[in-house]
Amino acid sequence: MIILNRIDTLKNELRQITKDKKIAFVPTMGALHEGHLSLISKAKKENDIVVVSIFINPTQFLQGEDLDTYPKKEQADAKLCELCGVDYLFLPNKEMMYEKDEILIKAPKTKGFILEGEKRPGHFDGMLQIVLKLFNIVNPTNAYFGKKDAQQLSLINQMVKNFYLDINIVACEIVRENDGLAMSSRNVYLDKHQRELALNISRSLNFAAKAVGANKTNSTLIIKEMEDFLSQYTEIKIEYITIVNREFEQINTIEIKNSIILIAVKIGNIRLIDNIWV
Amino acid sequence: MIILNRIDTLKNELRQITKDKKIAFVPTMGALHEGHLSLISKAKKENDIVVVSIFINPTQFLQGEDLDTYPKKEQADAKLCELCGVDYLFLPNKEMMYEKDEILIKAPKTKGFILEGEKRPGHFDGMLQIVLKLFNIVNPTNAYFGKKDAQQLSLINQMVKNFYLDINIVACEIVRENDGLAMSSRNVYLDKHQRELALNISRSLNFAAKAVGANKTNSTLIIKEMEDFLSQYTEIKIEYITIVNREFEQINTIEIKNSIILIAVKIGNIRLIDNIWV
Repeated sequence: MIILNRIDTLKNELRQITKDKKIAFVPTMGALHEGHLSLISKAKKENDIVVVSIFINPTQFLQGEDLDTYPKKEQADAKLCELCGVDYLFLPNKEMMYEKDEILIKAPKTKGFILEGEKRPGHFDGMLQIVLKLFNIVNPTNAYFGKKDAQQLSLINQMVKNFYLDINIVACEIVRENDGLAMSSRNVYLDKHQRELALNISRSLNFAAKAVGANKTNSTLIIKEMEDFLSQYTEIKIEYITIVNREFEQINTIEIKNSIILIAVKIGNIRLIDNIWV
Repeated sequence: MIILNRIDTLKNELRQITKDKKIAFVPTMGALHEGHLSLISKAKKENDIVVVSIFINPTQFLQGEDLDTYPKKEQADAKLCELCGVDYLFLPNKEMMYEKDEILIKAPKTKGFILEGEKRPGHFDGMLQIVLKLFNIVNPTNAYFGKKDAQQLSLINQMVKNFYLDINIVACEIVRENDGLAMSSRNVYLDKHQRELALNISRSLNFAAKAVGANKTNSTLIIKEMEDFLSQYTEIKIEYITIVNREFEQINTIEIKNSIILIAVKIGNIRLIDNIWV
């Protein structure tokens, strides 16, 4: 595995790879868990070369969010990448990735400012800005993203479409702990009691999915049942529960195999999101 | 010459060209004049394939500007392109180039909102949005832009840098009428008297360049002399006269061979810009 932190070096390396080879790209913020590893493993299977980036992108954190405390595990991450057969590990720093007074990417006015975008205004602007930069540096055939950040995935698909990027976006299944908690680098913030409480997030989604399986397709009713279930746990503060189609439009009637049930909660100061594709 | 209006058809055509061939791209808004033809001719000399686009991009016109009356000469333009040996003429329409609720490009907060950006706020956002789309569709080796729109050129260079685009931007000399008026599709708006008056724009720039040649490097003095000269013509309303370096930073002392003297005026309702690189 080649570890690089210079943009031009990575670009030069990758531009020498012949066009018949498939290049995979897995952008991450590090603190790699099994969710990331599943992306890398899928990337490895489907491509000739795998590039992983680790960059805690400051512009996608809001003032007061956890930029400074976001878990950093550089050595463990590098070891994991090596074990997974990653070819290039790209570790740029902030000074390399950003200049003063840059041209900016802005999330779409509607789709970018609902749900996560409403709770974290500006987050998607920064995410799209860095993803476009990384895409253009790596110029991959396939780029891998988890379904857990469903709205992020939807906006990245939109960016590829709006700007005619020659990149195939591969949406990967959510990886969960044995007890159902969706993997997240932020799970380390949970204490034992909070960790226990957090299980009810995926439980509520599973109940909802079961209801959909039994042909209940009224979004309002499904959402109400999830809210009722979670209301037992007063320490879980629901930020939103909503149901969207694959184009990320909120829908009143669930379209089977074309819908996503989304949830965001806070337990203490820890924000957790999860979803299920039904 | 192949005339195309579908994005996917053009993309498919161009992606079949082998990588050893150089592709040139000349984006225009049509109403082609000798300025455009000089770009195309340079593109033709320096590349294997020349792609010209004609698209009057609505998002770079402000409310109340001349979007509806902007000169259209589709057939003459096509004929000229053919005579110049253009390989692909791309004529998309608005519905193809834009979708609802798009991801947006925004000009840099400082550099995008001075001079032209101050007079035409939002203009550069729309310009960058369409140029990025077109760049990604065509994926050229070299893209050709005139020095007349110096701030546009500077921002396009910045976009290539900020987003690591693999495109070489070629800055081309301003082409002038025999009497010195810089070529512009908007010159057709000038009546005979206005056309006569407009000559003083390039005259004022020539005086300034001569002064710089005689080692006068104080920006304030040079600008003052231009203003004094133009003040004879009360029908010429100066919007700005300024001097910047190649990074488009306003400078108090002219850096020889690294400076641009810029002017924007209004004659009646017609806005004209010009500049000289010294």
